[in-house]
Amino acid sequence: MGRLLVINGPNLNLLGTREKDIYGKKSLDEINREVAGEAKKLGFEADFVQSNHEGAIIDYIHSARGRYDVLIINPGAYTHYSIAIRDAIKAVEIPTIEVHLSNIHAREEFRSKSVIAPVCVGQICGFGSDGYVLAVRAAAMFLAAGRGK
Amino acid sequence: MGRLLVINGPNLNLLGTREKDIYGKKSLDEINREVAGEAKKLGFEADFVQSNHEGAIIDYIHSARGRYDVLIINPGAYTHYSIAIRDAIKAVEIPTIEVHLSNIHAREEFRSKSVIAPVCVGQICGFGSDGYVLAVRAAAMFLAAGRGK
Amino acid sequence: MGRLLVINGPNLNLLGTREKDIYGKKSLDEINREVAGEAKKLGFEADFVQSNHEGAIIDYIHSARGRYDVLIINPGAYTHYSIAIRDAIKAVEIPTIEVHLSNIHAREEFRSKSVIAPVCVGQICGFGSDGYVLAVRAAAMFLAAGRGK
Amino acid sequence: MGRLLVINGPNLNLLGTREKDIYGKKSLDEINREVAGEAKKLGFEADFVQSNHEGAIIDYIHSARGRYDVLIINPGAYTHYSIAIRDAIKAVEIPTIEVHLSNIHAREEFRSKSVIAPVCVGQICGFGSDGYVLAVRAAAMFLAAGRGK
Amino acid sequence: MGRLLVINGPNLNLLGTREKDIYGKKSLDEINREVAGEAKKLGFEADFVQSNHEGAIIDYIHSARGRYDVLIINPGAYTHYSIAIRDAIKAVEIPTIEVHLSNIHAREEFRSKSVIAPVCVGQICGFGSDGYVLAVRAAAMFLAAGRGK
Amino acid sequence: MGRLLVINGPNLNLLGTREKDIYGKKSLDEINREVAGEAKKLGFEADFVQSNHEGAIIDYIHSARGRYDVLIINPGAYTHYSIAIRDAIKAVEIPTIEVHLSNIHAREEFRSKSVIAPVCVGQICGFGSDGYVLAVRAAAMFLAAGRGK
Amino acid sequence: MGRLLVINGPNLNLLGTREKDIYGKKSLDEINREVAGEAKKLGFEADFVQSNHEGAIIDYIHSARGRYDVLIINPGAYTHYSIAIRDAIKAVEIPTIEVHLSNIHAREEFRSKSVIAPVCVGQICGFGSDGYVLAVRAAAMFLAAGRGK
Amino acid sequence: MGRLLVINGPNLNLLGTREKDIYGKKSLDEINREVAGEAKKLGFEADFVQSNHEGAIIDYIHSARGRYDVLIINPGAYTHYSIAIRDAIKAVEIPTIEVHLSNIHAREEFRSKSVIAPVCVGQICGFGSDGYVLAVRAAAMFLAAGRGK
Amino acid sequence: MGRLLVINGPNLNLLGTREKDIYGKKSLDEINREVAGEAKKLGFEADFVQSNHEGAIIDYIHSARGRYDVLIINPGAYTHYSIAIRDAIKAVEIPTIEVHLSNIHAREEFRSKSVIAPVCVGQICGFGSDGYVLAVRAAAMFLAAGRGK
Amino acid sequence: MGRLLVINGPNLNLLGTREKDIYGKKSLDEINREVAGEAKKLGFEADFVQSNHEGAIIDYIHSARGRYDVLIINPGAYTHYSIAIRDAIKAVEIPTIEVHLSNIHAREEFRSKSVIAPVCVGQICGFGSDGYVLAVRAAAMFLAAGRGK
Amino acid sequence: MGRLLVINGPNLNLLGTREKDIYGKKSLDEINREVAGEAKKLGFEADFVQSNHEGAIIDYIHSARGRYDVLIINPGAYTHYSIAIRDAIKAVEIPTIEVHLSNIHAREEFRSKSVIAPVCVGQICGFGSDGYVLAVRAAAMFLAAGRGK
Amino acid sequence: MGRLLVINGPNLNLLGTREKDIYGKKSLDEINREVAGEAKKLGFEADFVQSNHEGAIIDYIHSARGRYDVLIINPGAYTHYSIAIRDAIKAVEIPTIEVHLSNIHAREEFRSKSVIAPVCVGQICGFGSDGYVLAVRAAAMFLAAGRGK
Repeated sequence: MGRLLVINGPNLNLLGTREKDIYGKKSLDEINREVAGEAKKLGFEADFVQSNHEGAIIDYIHSARGRYDVLIINPGAYTHYSIAIRDAIKAVEIPTIEVHLSNIHAREEFRSKSVIAPVCVGQICGFGSDGYVLAVRAAAMFLAAGRGK
Repeated sequence: MGRLLVINGPNLNLLGTREKDIYGKKSLDEINREVAGEAKKLGFEADFVQSNHEGAIIDYIHSARGRYDVLIINPGAYTHYSIAIRDAIKAVEIPTIEVHLSNIHAREEFRSKSVIAPVCVGQICGFGSDGYVLAVRAAAMFLAAGRGK
Repeated sequence: MGRLLVINGPNLNLLGTREKDIYGKKSLDEINREVAGEAKKLGFEADFVQSNHEGAIIDYIHSARGRYDVLIINPGAYTHYSIAIRDAIKAVEIPTIEVHLSNIHAREEFRSKSVIAPVCVGQICGFGSDGYVLAVRAAAMFLAAGRGK
Repeated sequence: MGRLLVINGPNLNLLGTREKDIYGKKSLDEINREVAGEAKKLGFEADFVQSNHEGAIIDYIHSARGRYDVLIINPGAYTHYSIAIRDAIKAVEIPTIEVHLSNIHAREEFRSKSVIAPVCVGQICGFGSDGYVLAVRAAAMFLAAGRGK
Repeated sequence: MGRLLVINGPNLNLLGTREKDIYGKKSLDEINREVAGEAKKLGFEADFVQSNHEGAIIDYIHSARGRYDVLIINPGAYTHYSIAIRDAIKAVEIPTIEVHLSNIHAREEFRSKSVIAPVCVGQICGFGSDGYVLAVRAAAMFLAAGRGK
Repeated sequence: MGRLLVINGPNLNLLGTREKDIYGKKSLDEINREVAGEAKKLGFEADFVQSNHEGAIIDYIHSARGRYDVLIINPGAYTHYSIAIRDAIKAVEIPTIEVHLSNIHAREEFRSKSVIAPVCVGQICGFGSDGYVLAVRAAAMFLAAGRGK
Repeated sequence: MGRLLVINGPNLNLLGTREKDIYGKKSLDEINREVAGEAKKLGFEADFVQSNHEGAIIDYIHSARGRYDVLIINPGAYTHYSIAIRDAIKAVEIPTIEVHLSNIHAREEFRSKSVIAPVCVGQICGFGSDGYVLAVRAAAMFLAAGRGK
Repeated sequence: MGRLLVINGPNLNLLGTREKDIYGKKSLDEINREVAGEAKKLGFEADFVQSNHEGAIIDYIHSARGRYDVLIINPGAYTHYSIAIRDAIKAVEIPTIEVHLSNIHAREEFRSKSVIAPVCVGQICGFGSDGYVLAVRAAAMFLAAGRGK
Repeated sequence: MGRLLVINGPNLNLLGTREKDIYGKKSLDEINREVAGEAKKLGFEADFVQSNHEGAIIDYIHSARGRYDVLIINPGAYTHYSIAIRDAIKAVEIPTIEVHLSNIHAREEFRSKSVIAPVCVGQICGFGSDGYVLAVRAAAMFLAAGRGK
Repeated sequence: MGRLLVINGPNLNLLGTREKDIYGKKSLDEINREVAGEAKKLGFEADFVQSNHEGAIIDYIHSARGRYDVLIINPGAYTHYSIAIRDAIKAVEIPTIEVHLSNIHAREEFRSKSVIAPVCVGQICGFGSDGYVLAVRAAAMFLAAGRGK
Repeated sequence: MGRLLVINGPNLNLLGTREKDIYGKKSLDEINREVAGEAKKLGFEADFVQSNHEGAIIDYIHSARGRYDVLIINPGAYTHYSIAIRDAIKAVEIPTIEVHLSNIHAREEFRSKSVIAPVCVGQICGFGSDGYVLAVRAAAMFLAAGRGK
Repeated sequence: MGRLLVINGPNLNLLGTREKDIYGKKSLDEINREVAGEAKKLGFEADFVQSNHEGAIIDYIHSARGRYDVLIINPGAYTHYSIAIRDAIKAVEIPTIEVHLSNIHAREEFRSKSVIAPVCVGQICGFGSDGYVLAVRAAAMFLAAGRGK
């Protein structure tokens, strides 16, 4: 299908250990394994990175150019203010899918606004770790439709 | 898996004939057939309704009580102001997934606000008609996880 | 005393079955019977309609001209945006009393704003189904004071 | 039924002498006598206080603890900014009904906002002095339903 | 010249009977007859519909595709919030002229905002029923200039 | 019919030479000739002035007192902030019709707000130079209805 | 000329001792003596009160009814939020002149807004203690013009 | 005392002929004569200018440098947006007193905001033409106190 | 060390009896005794006052001039709107420390804004009654650093 | 290089005589001579105009068509509200560079907003009179890159 | 008492060398030594970190889990926008005290808003480096009260 | 002349490869070489750094103290929210010039706001890579005028 990079932002390394009622019980590694499984099934080679550093996330996005066909990103709290990440995604011109574990529209007012969304293909939120699996599938359908180029 | 009702709101009956660069070339019937296929594959019985009338959409949601396990709704323009549809979804307490064909966060400012989203399980937008297919899968995963009850 | 029309808006047909902690346990029929009793006691002939359709509510208001002396209306979620219902009330020039089951000022911010209230005689909210009974009494006092003409 | 304290706020001592087209022709004493009559009929012992002093109103509310079962308050202009009165009502935990003579939603924009309302049982406005009578009745129904405890 | 559909929205069926100082003394039928006369004179076949239902107005707009060359619409109160009607007009791609009887810029603040206007050819307001006649003429000039295609 | 003064504001002297896709290809002189023709046909004596100076436009409006029966004004960019022109129109008490070549509601947000409109009879926008012709006709209908006095 | 009551609000008792660069070096007593002199010269009997208590200021205003022909008020900080004082002035219907020592429009943003001003005859600010003297003169001119009745 | 320039802005040349209920019956010439009388009495040489042109008002302010000791200005509608006039007053460093005939705080919301006020000594509004006389007196007191230098 | 006045505002007299989950179980007397102990330990003479009256709090602040070296104030709900108390603190020029029992930044939006804070040395909130003890210590450190003069 | 017109707006004729700490000590003539020197060095013919009149500035811009290759404009206070000047620049389609002596982003909030900037090539601010010299150089580089056509 | 981690954010490494009138003369090392002294006295083991990197601060917070009982954090400028740091504090569930050297409520408007505060125990600001010492004491009292678990 | 540090922020390392219509075709290295040439010509020693990390940019600014006389910074997307970078610039007290390749006032609304600008000497935007060259020149003029100390 192509190559896929999954980027997780700040605090997502704590998944499974923090606020489980909001974010679920699975660790990020468990989720990544599930996503890798789905990716493989759909013919993707998938890689996974996580960082709490806005700059590092930008670096990952830059280095994806020419190496990945699709990005799946959960920008964590940077969703709400990192215009720098937004610009990075726009700059590399790789189709990007935004994922959120929780329904960001059902929480504090400031979480419903994503500065990242306008430069992504689409957004999936509220389905817990299933959201990543759905994003892989969305990526596959997106590329299959020839919209990736 | 269960029973599934797909509700499409105003102007979606024109799909495939209007603004194809934004909404795609498939008619609503074609999309519904695709979704029905996916639903069947995942073990759902699926029904489909569409209306341009806010009140009719509320009536459909009410009548879904006791008859459907999951709702997939694309509220069209009502997304942005129909608190009445929001209250209907909240009232019937059926897990509901919100779908938008276009990436509502990449268009006019007023389209990025959904008054419906806070009472839904989650939101999927930007993937064209694939969004419905993803929503069916999301519904399946949601029910499989026992979160529907 | 006169003739009285009680109009209930969207989702109020679900009363007694939905979110009982907010809206109470009585069905709309039970409430209407109570209100009919109070109305009779105070010398009113009372009729009752409910609709989830904004347009239908407007039609009901229009048809009330020349047939009813007072309207009691719970516009449900339309309270917050239906300028069309507001204009209908203003146009027919029948004294109208706005009722809400819950205290709309103690809920989500957007519920504290009523676009209907400025064209009504007054507003009663927060007393559950008692609010309708109080409204009937308010109507009686209003007409008794000769303010209805 | 119980004991009832009616609290009137700033400028309400001038009733019957000021802006009669907005507030009506009855003096506060006349209104209080009417309210006392209704209260007696419904089995309440009723007391009446009025002050132009925010602090005095707070003192009255504090002293009501353990002595009254329901408060009826028309906070006058303090409605729109006295968070201190709001906190007093919340602190004493006596069910409180807010009354306004005029329809505050049909006047200057700033009058439609009540900082008191969110801590009250409900609000009655627009019915002139009848509003107090309705509030007594609302109090009776409220206590009869066992919601006072 | 072509075919012309005149669509009137909520409460306009009451014309001539309500708030005559704002909306004038003519009934909608009388206005329609005048407009029909002007249309005929300019070589239009004209039809007329009115509804208080947002959904019905959308249905009328949809059904106009392929049957009318120009729409004249007075969306009444829906002017201020019906993004659904806006989307319908945009979808059918028929040149549309927005008319208001009163000068919406000289009334309540919220009436000066039209969510419909951005998808119309132009807006005419403040000329009472003459506005429709002017709109017919505007339509004729618009089509004569070959801008309708 | 009466005497008519057409006032054009800043930058309108460049018509036909600037941004033709927005404002059309006709020069102001050509438009004025068309308008003069229509005016004559309807029995008006018409004069035409243009200025880029806010103060000069105010002077023109002042000097119109006692000399003209109707004003047609396209205030150009002053539409959006010249309270001084607004006050001038209000002061001379001559019925005034506001015209805009483009649909000001379909452009930058700030262009949809007219500080002039609230003191005019009505507004016509979006019909290019036809808007002036329509305004002349609107003026004739307005005076014919005896509303000018 | 008539009787005149000068009311000073919170913190004005500290005049001459606090923030002299903003409020000047004279004590309130010194200012009052100057004002009394001017008042006498113009034929007024003048009285002076000061309070830090919003309620007391309201009481003073109430008690002025039937006893004073003009009020001069410097509401101090209450200028910016005391709708209760505003309502008191409106209720007693005595012509009232608002005075501020400092230019409230040249300080913190929140000081430029007066909730009192809309119910006063006029406002004088920025002239230090001279403002009171000017207000006395304004009162004399106002009454002389027969506008006090 | 010194030299005094009185500057009147747009539409004030119409005084006595326009909206007399708001602005009074005196013409600007009559007012100027009254002001000249008061000025003379207090030892001022006074000059008077009026213009509807923002630029001309700026020119007048500039030319006042070295020739006048105090400015009295009624900027008319420019009060609300002319930062250019504000900058002119600030630049010439002549003490300036702002006058308004009407109480600008009791009219449309936008009139209560003065962009000029922050660079003036003070503001007098609501006293009709008396406001200019008061301003002359304020100027005299201001200079007498040695604050002009 | 110096003399210290602790001022508590509205509703704080109810401490220990109201909303204990927010404000804790200790009465104001108990807290004052603890604070007195800490004050004594650090060499302060401490006095304590409480009032529900804004005006009385201002009076207390005024009377503190020349008698106290530091003020500790919990303005209760007046925190959010009493510009009069703010001006009193500014006027007396005694270093003032603002204390809140609860974390005002973690409650309703309107509680996070303090109009008092800008004129205080600093703010301590969220530590329950410990906040007063910390404030005494802060006062001691502040004076020890010679910043009190 | 080409022909260059430097346009200075309101109050800039006072340069060197007003608020020197903000705007510097050089007169406009001195600055213009420096700019002329730089222009000559870079091969430009340069002309200079200044006006306090918004309309005159628009006239200058209009007359520049066909006569100048680049405009350098310091619109003074008109920067913040003159949409008319903005439209003039857009209309003549001459590359325009906006200059401000002071750093408009470090002053009053309202000065940071330029309504002119969106139609200019770029903006230079904060460098005092050097800003004009930089603008000439910017113009040269701009034309040299062939971006002027 | 427990283990304590003091985290200082961006630019605080420059303390004692920058803007000493706002932030004081002590270097961060000096402050840390003072805080370490106080911590030791109260029975805490204290560690100190500082970073200008938002991501590094998040990493420090994460690594504190299971190793520290209390965090004291001065997030510097990140206070105003780092939702990522806020989420980190919320995620690790260690009681956290927010400290600011300056009174953030007495500076630029944007500094009065802390996005961190809602997830902290409390906030101490305005006491310079004493604020950290007070925070240590606050931490001790907090733990002593058994609120840390 | 002095030493000069040019700091480029996030995504600027991609110059010449991304969105060339907005940012131009030159790579950052090419631009830096041009800037180095200009710097050398004007007598500057120039160094160049770039980072996508907000913290790293702050570190660079800190380390510039005592080593550089002027900073030229293009903060990229951090322009719009990094108060931390703003504080760093303010803290090191090195004159700083802000540069943007594109005209940030002609793009999305949020890009017109710079939180960095208020602490810089000035801002240059819209001239592509020429902006850096102009900034070097601005720096030279600034230092030559003795304003750097």
